[in-house]
Amino acid sequence: MFRLGLLNPNTSDRHTVSMCAVAEAALPGGCRVVAATAPRGPSSIESAADSAVAAAEVVALMRAHQGLDAYLIGCFGDPGLDAARELTGAPVVGAGEASCLAAALVARRFAVVTTLPRGVPGIEDGLERRGLRSRCVGVVPLDIPVAEQGADHGDTTDAIVRAGEELVRERGAEALVLACGAMAEVAETVQAAVGVPVCEGVAFGALLVHSLWRAGLRTSKAGAYAWPEPTPYAAIPEARADTPSVTQQ
Amino acid sequence: MFRLGLLNPNTSDRHTVSMCAVAEAALPGGCRVVAATAPRGPSSIESAADSAVAAAEVVALMRAHQGLDAYLIGCFGDPGLDAARELTGAPVVGAGEASCLAAALVARRFAVVTTLPRGVPGIEDGLERRGLRSRCVGVVPLDIPVAEQGADHGDTTDAIVRAGEELVRERGAEALVLACGAMAEVAETVQAAVGVPVCEGVAFGALLVHSLWRAGLRTSKAGAYAWPEPTPYAAIPEARADTPSVTQQ
Amino acid sequence: MFRLGLLNPNTSDRHTVSMCAVAEAALPGGCRVVAATAPRGPSSIESAADSAVAAAEVVALMRAHQGLDAYLIGCFGDPGLDAARELTGAPVVGAGEASCLAAALVARRFAVVTTLPRGVPGIEDGLERRGLRSRCVGVVPLDIPVAEQGADHGDTTDAIVRAGEELVRERGAEALVLACGAMAEVAETVQAAVGVPVCEGVAFGALLVHSLWRAGLRTSKAGAYAWPEPTPYAAIPEARADTPSVTQQ
Amino acid sequence: MFRLGLLNPNTSDRHTVSMCAVAEAALPGGCRVVAATAPRGPSSIESAADSAVAAAEVVALMRAHQGLDAYLIGCFGDPGLDAARELTGAPVVGAGEASCLAAALVARRFAVVTTLPRGVPGIEDGLERRGLRSRCVGVVPLDIPVAEQGADHGDTTDAIVRAGEELVRERGAEALVLACGAMAEVAETVQAAVGVPVCEGVAFGALLVHSLWRAGLRTSKAGAYAWPEPTPYAAIPEARADTPSVTQQ
Amino acid sequence: MFRLGLLNPNTSDRHTVSMCAVAEAALPGGCRVVAATAPRGPSSIESAADSAVAAAEVVALMRAHQGLDAYLIGCFGDPGLDAARELTGAPVVGAGEASCLAAALVARRFAVVTTLPRGVPGIEDGLERRGLRSRCVGVVPLDIPVAEQGADHGDTTDAIVRAGEELVRERGAEALVLACGAMAEVAETVQAAVGVPVCEGVAFGALLVHSLWRAGLRTSKAGAYAWPEPTPYAAIPEARADTPSVTQQ
Amino acid sequence: MFRLGLLNPNTSDRHTVSMCAVAEAALPGGCRVVAATAPRGPSSIESAADSAVAAAEVVALMRAHQGLDAYLIGCFGDPGLDAARELTGAPVVGAGEASCLAAALVARRFAVVTTLPRGVPGIEDGLERRGLRSRCVGVVPLDIPVAEQGADHGDTTDAIVRAGEELVRERGAEALVLACGAMAEVAETVQAAVGVPVCEGVAFGALLVHSLWRAGLRTSKAGAYAWPEPTPYAAIPEARADTPSVTQQ
Repeated sequence: MFRLGLLNPNTSDRHTVSMCAVAEAALPGGCRVVAATAPRGPSSIESAADSAVAAAEVVALMRAHQGLDAYLIGCFGDPGLDAARELTGAPVVGAGEASCLAAALVARRFAVVTTLPRGVPGIEDGLERRGLRSRCVGVVPLDIPVAEQGADHGDTTDAIVRAGEELVRERGAEALVLACGAMAEVAETVQAAVGVPVCEGVAFGALLVHSLWRAGLRTSKAGAYAWPEPTPYAAIPEARADTPSVTQQ
Repeated sequence: MFRLGLLNPNTSDRHTVSMCAVAEAALPGGCRVVAATAPRGPSSIESAADSAVAAAEVVALMRAHQGLDAYLIGCFGDPGLDAARELTGAPVVGAGEASCLAAALVARRFAVVTTLPRGVPGIEDGLERRGLRSRCVGVVPLDIPVAEQGADHGDTTDAIVRAGEELVRERGAEALVLACGAMAEVAETVQAAVGVPVCEGVAFGALLVHSLWRAGLRTSKAGAYAWPEPTPYAAIPEARADTPSVTQQ
Repeated sequence: MFRLGLLNPNTSDRHTVSMCAVAEAALPGGCRVVAATAPRGPSSIESAADSAVAAAEVVALMRAHQGLDAYLIGCFGDPGLDAARELTGAPVVGAGEASCLAAALVARRFAVVTTLPRGVPGIEDGLERRGLRSRCVGVVPLDIPVAEQGADHGDTTDAIVRAGEELVRERGAEALVLACGAMAEVAETVQAAVGVPVCEGVAFGALLVHSLWRAGLRTSKAGAYAWPEPTPYAAIPEARADTPSVTQQ
Repeated sequence: MFRLGLLNPNTSDRHTVSMCAVAEAALPGGCRVVAATAPRGPSSIESAADSAVAAAEVVALMRAHQGLDAYLIGCFGDPGLDAARELTGAPVVGAGEASCLAAALVARRFAVVTTLPRGVPGIEDGLERRGLRSRCVGVVPLDIPVAEQGADHGDTTDAIVRAGEELVRERGAEALVLACGAMAEVAETVQAAVGVPVCEGVAFGALLVHSLWRAGLRTSKAGAYAWPEPTPYAAIPEARADTPSVTQQ
Repeated sequence: MFRLGLLNPNTSDRHTVSMCAVAEAALPGGCRVVAATAPRGPSSIESAADSAVAAAEVVALMRAHQGLDAYLIGCFGDPGLDAARELTGAPVVGAGEASCLAAALVARRFAVVTTLPRGVPGIEDGLERRGLRSRCVGVVPLDIPVAEQGADHGDTTDAIVRAGEELVRERGAEALVLACGAMAEVAETVQAAVGVPVCEGVAFGALLVHSLWRAGLRTSKAGAYAWPEPTPYAAIPEARADTPSVTQQ
Repeated sequence: MFRLGLLNPNTSDRHTVSMCAVAEAALPGGCRVVAATAPRGPSSIESAADSAVAAAEVVALMRAHQGLDAYLIGCFGDPGLDAARELTGAPVVGAGEASCLAAALVARRFAVVTTLPRGVPGIEDGLERRGLRSRCVGVVPLDIPVAEQGADHGDTTDAIVRAGEELVRERGAEALVLACGAMAEVAETVQAAVGVPVCEGVAFGALLVHSLWRAGLRTSKAGAYAWPEPTPYAAIPEARADTPSVTQQ
C-alpha cells in the first residue's frame, strides 16, 4: 500500500484537512494519505518571511515523518523542497512545481493567477528556475489575501474567473495555474467557467509523486540531495515568539 | 476504464510490443493500452530525416485512433508531439519529455545517455526548449545504434553502465536519462548497477499522462493546440518510395 | 551556373509559381531556379499538424531533387529544415530563418506579423531557438488565414500596414517580418507604406543561400547534419487518406 | 554613526567573532558592527536542510535586531535574504551576492571554490539567479567540510591555492570567489599566492551595504520587499529537537 | 588618501563639475576626486556613434591619468569600460552598472527612465549583458534630450516623477534607475516624490569603487583585462573634424 | 553598379589590400569595392582598448565615405557596428557577425579559433549577444598574435588545422569560425585539411550585405539606428598621441 506524506507548511488545520481530501480523492484506490500540519509559524504564507519560517517547519515535519513512500509539499511556493529531498530516499514533489508542470503539458502558453501583488516577482523567478518563464504569458494578482480564498468566498471565485477570461482573451493564455493552495477547491468551478484547463498542485501533485513511486524512481542520494551532513545542531534555549514582532513601522 | 493510446512512431512491431508491456505493467489495474505501430517510415529513428517522416506518421496514427483517454508517443525524440496535441482533446505526453521531467524531479543534475554522436545537438536543443539544459551535466553518446540496443545486447548494457558511472563520478550526474526507447528494457539493470535513478519515458510517461487524466486535465483547445484548421489536403497520387533513395554520396 | 532548388512544402502550385518568380528576380543573372511542389499534404500550413505532414514532404522532395547547388525551403515555419540539411552536401536555408536574420541585420528591434493567433507561440519559440527572441518586440496575428493573403487581397494588405504602423509607433519595432510565404508578394507595398524595412524570406533566402554557395560554404557532413543512417524504411501498404479525418469534434 | 547588523545564520560564536573583526576592519572609522549569532540550528551550513533552518533563524534575528542602519547576512548561501529585506527599511546585503558582484567588477570571468561537491548545483543556480552564470568558468569543490576551513587549517589553504592556480591556468579564471564564510580568513593569503583577485563577502559585503546607506538607498517598501502581511503565527508548543533526527539511513 | 579618477566621457565641463561635487559629497572624508573631461567628441552622448567616439576618449583619459587609486566612468552607457579596465591595475566602475546594481540590491524589480526612445534597445541589451534584464519591468523614454535634463529643468523633473509613478503603479517597479548622468542632480527630488529608491551611478558608483579598493580588490591582470598588447599605433596625420559631417540626409 | 565600402578599422594597409581582394573575388561581376584604412589607431586589434579606438575610427570612416551602397566592417570584433548603422541608410554588416551566421547556417554546432587567450571572453559574450552561444562548442585560442597570422605563416596554419581537428574530434564541432581577419587568407587551406566548413567574414560578409542590398533591405532609420542626434562636437585642440602611453607597468 502506497502511503503519501502530505505536508502542510502552514499552521492551518482546516487547510490540511481540505488538501488531504483532495489528494485522497485523486489517488487510486488503496492509497493512504498521512497529512501533517506545521505546528509553528504562519497560518498562511504571504511573504518571503512567512515562507522562510515555513520551510524550516517542512524540515521538522520531514524529520518527524520518516518512512513514508512519497511526500507532497502542499503550498504553491514549495517551501523547503530541496531540503525535504535531502531528508528522504523517497520521491518528493511540491504542489507549485506540479501545477506548473501540468500546465506545460496541456498547453503551450499558460498564465498564473495569484493572491497579492507582492508575490508576483517570486512566482516569476520560480518559473524561470524551472525553465518555464517563456511559457507563461503573465502572473496576475487578484489583490485578495489567502484568508479570503477558497470555496466559501464566492466573490473571490468570480474574480478568478474574470481574471482568467481576460488572460485567455487578451494575452493568449491557454491554461491557468492557481497559485494558492486554498484556490484548489475552486479549480473545477473555474475550469468549467473559463473553458481552459485549470491546474492546481494538490491533486496533480499527489498523482505525480505517486507516478514516480510506481515507476521505481526515488530521490537521488548522489550529489545535491544526498543525506544532510551530520552538522551539530545547537540547543534551542527558548521558544520562538509566537507572533512576528515586526510589521509595518 | 482508462484507455491509453501508445503510438510507436517507427515501424518496428517488436518495439511496440515491448513498450506496450512496459506501459501495461506500470499503469494501475483496470487500465488498457491500445498500441499502434507506424505503418510507414523508418524502423528506428536515428536522424532528423527519420524523425520528420515519423512525425507525419504520428499525425496519421492520431487521426486513425481517435477517442481514447490519453496518448503517449513512444520515442525519445517526441516526433509530432505538438501536432498530436492539436488532434485530440485528451492529454498527450511524449516519452522524451516524460523521462527528462522525471529526472528533474528526483535529481538536481542529470545526464543523458544516447546512441549516436549525431543526435547530441538535437537532444541538447530539446532540453533547452523544455527549460532543462542547465540541469543537465552532459549528453553522452555510446556510438552504438538503436539496432544494437535492448535487453538482448548485454555488451550495450555494459557500455551504458560504464558511461553512467563515469557521468556520476566525473560530472556530478545525480540521475541518468536513457535517450532511446529500446534502452527502456534495461533501465532497471542500469539503475541497480550505477546506484542513481535511471529514467525512461515509457513507464513514467504512461503514468504521467494517466495522472493528467485522473486530475481532470485535458489538452487545451484554446490557442496553439486548437483543432487544426480545415486546410484541404491534396490527393496522394503514388505511394512513397519504401526505402530512402539518398544515403551517403 | 548556379541551380537553386526551391521547395514548396505545401501543395499549392500557384504559390510555387509565385515564389519561383520572386527568387528568380532576386538572384543575379545566370542563376536558375528549380521549383518543386509537395505532391501530398496541406495546401497551406496553418497548424503543427499541417507542418508535420509538410516536413515529411520536404524529405521526399529532397530525395527526389538531388544534385542541385543549394536549396531554399519556401515556408516561414521552415518545416523539415534540419532533415533537409542531412540529405545534401549543398547549403540549405529556410525562408523563415532568412527573413528573421535579415531583420536582425537591418534593425535592432523587429516585430513579426502573422496570420492566425494559434501560430504565435510557435513563432516565438522559433525566434528563441534562433537566439532572436530578445530582438523581437512582438508577434502579432492578423486573424486572417493564408487563403486570404497575397496581392489579390487588398484588405489584408491594409490590415498588415495598420498592424505594422502600430508596432512601429507603440512597441518600437524598427523592421517588420512577414511570417507567411503568401505575404511576400506585398512586402514592397507594406515597406513603402510603413517606412521601415519589411523582410520576407523568399527573395532574401535565395540570395542568402547563393551567398553561402559563392563563399564555398556547404552543409557540414560532420555531426548533426551527416548523411542519414541507412535505416530500413517500411513498405507503404496503402495510400494515406487525402484529407484529414479529424477536425473539430 | 553607522551601525551595521552582522547576522551569522549559524550557531558558531567563533565564526561570528571572526566575521565581526573582518567587517570592522573593512569599514571606515566611526562605524560600529552589531554582530548576532543564530541561537538555534546548525553550527555550519552544508546542506539545503541546514540552510532552510538557518533562514528561519535570520528571520528571528532580524525581528530581534530592529533599528540598525544596514544588515549583512554572513553566509555565502545568503539564507533568508529576501525575507530579511521584507523585515526592514534599511539596506540588506548577503555575503554571497557581495562576493560574486565583487568578482564580476574586477574580472570578466571568475571561478568559485567551495567546500563539498553537494553544494555545487546550488551555487550554480544562485549564479544563474543573479545573472552571473555565464561569467563563471567553474564551481570547484575541495571536498573539505566547513569544519576544516579557516586560518587554522594550513592544508586547506594549500588546497585552495592549488585549486585556484589550476582554475586560472586551465579554465581562464581571472578572479576567485571563496564560497564559504570560514574561507574569508585566508582570502589575502590565497590572493597573494595565486595572483588574481580573491573575493569574499564579509569585508566587501560590509562596505557594499555601507555604500548603499551613504548613497541614501534603502530597501524598497513597494512590492516584493514590502513589510510582511500581518499573518497570525501559531504558538510554538514544544522546543525543536536540538539535533537532526535524520541522517543517513 | 584615496584618489578617485572621475572620467567624464563627454566634453561638457559643466557636467564634470556637477558629477565631481556629487562624488565628493558621497565619499567619506579624506578622499579626493580627480575629475577629467574628454577634450574631444560629443558634448552629450545620445547615440551609438556618440558613444563610440566617447569610448575612445575614455581610453585617452585613462592613458593620461595613470596612477590613481580607482576610476569611475561618469556616463550611464559605460563607454570604454572594458578598455579602461585593461589600462589600469586599479578598480574601475561604470556609473551605469553601478546604478543598476544598486537597484538590484534594494528592490526585486526596477524600471529605467531614460531620455530618448532610440536609446531603449541599447539599455535593454546592457541589462541583459549584466544579467539583470529579468529584474527590469521596463525601460521608458521621456523623449526629452540630455540638454534639457538636470536641476535647471523643472518640467523634466515633473516628467520623470510622472513616469516613475506610473511605472510603480502599473508595472510593479519597486525602484527607479535614472539612465542619464544629468538626471543625477534630481534623484533625491524624484525619490522624495515617488517614494521608492531612485538609483543613479555617480554617488553610488564612487562609493562602490571605493569599497572595492578598501577591500583590497584590484582589476585582475589575468585574462581579458590584462594590460593591452603593445600594438603599434599609427601616427595621426590630421585632426579629426570637430563636428560630425553626417546627420540626417 | 553596386559599390561596397570595405572599412578596415586598423591601420594596416597590407590588411586592407588583402581583404579588398577577397571581397572583390567573392562578389558577382560588376560590383566595386571601395576600401578604406583607419588613418589612426592600432595596426591590429588585440584588446578592448585597441577595439575602442578602432570603433571611433569606424565612425570617422563612415563620415568620410558617405553615399556607397553597402558597408562591411572588416574585423572579427565588429568595432563600431551599431554606430556605423546610425550613420547611413545603406545596409551594414560586420565580418564577425557574418562569419558566425554562416557557421550557424551550415552546421548545428561550431567552434571558434582565435589568436590570444585574452580575447576569449569577448568572443563568448559576442556570441551570446547574437543568440549563438549555445550553438558554439568552444572558443579556442592559439596563443599566436595577429602579427603572425596569414598566408605567410605556415606554422600558424598548421596550428589552426591541429586545433580544428581536435575541436571536431573531441567537442563535436561541425564547422569552424576563424576569429581574425588575417586568418581569412588561409580559410580554404584549413577547410581542405580539416574537412568541415571553415567560415570567415570577409568573403561571406561582402556577399551577405550585397544580398541585403539586392533584396531592397536598408538599415532601418526608425529607432536605434536613426540618424545620430545633432550633438555638438568639441574641437580637437591637439593630436592624439601616436602610440599608447600605457602598457605593462
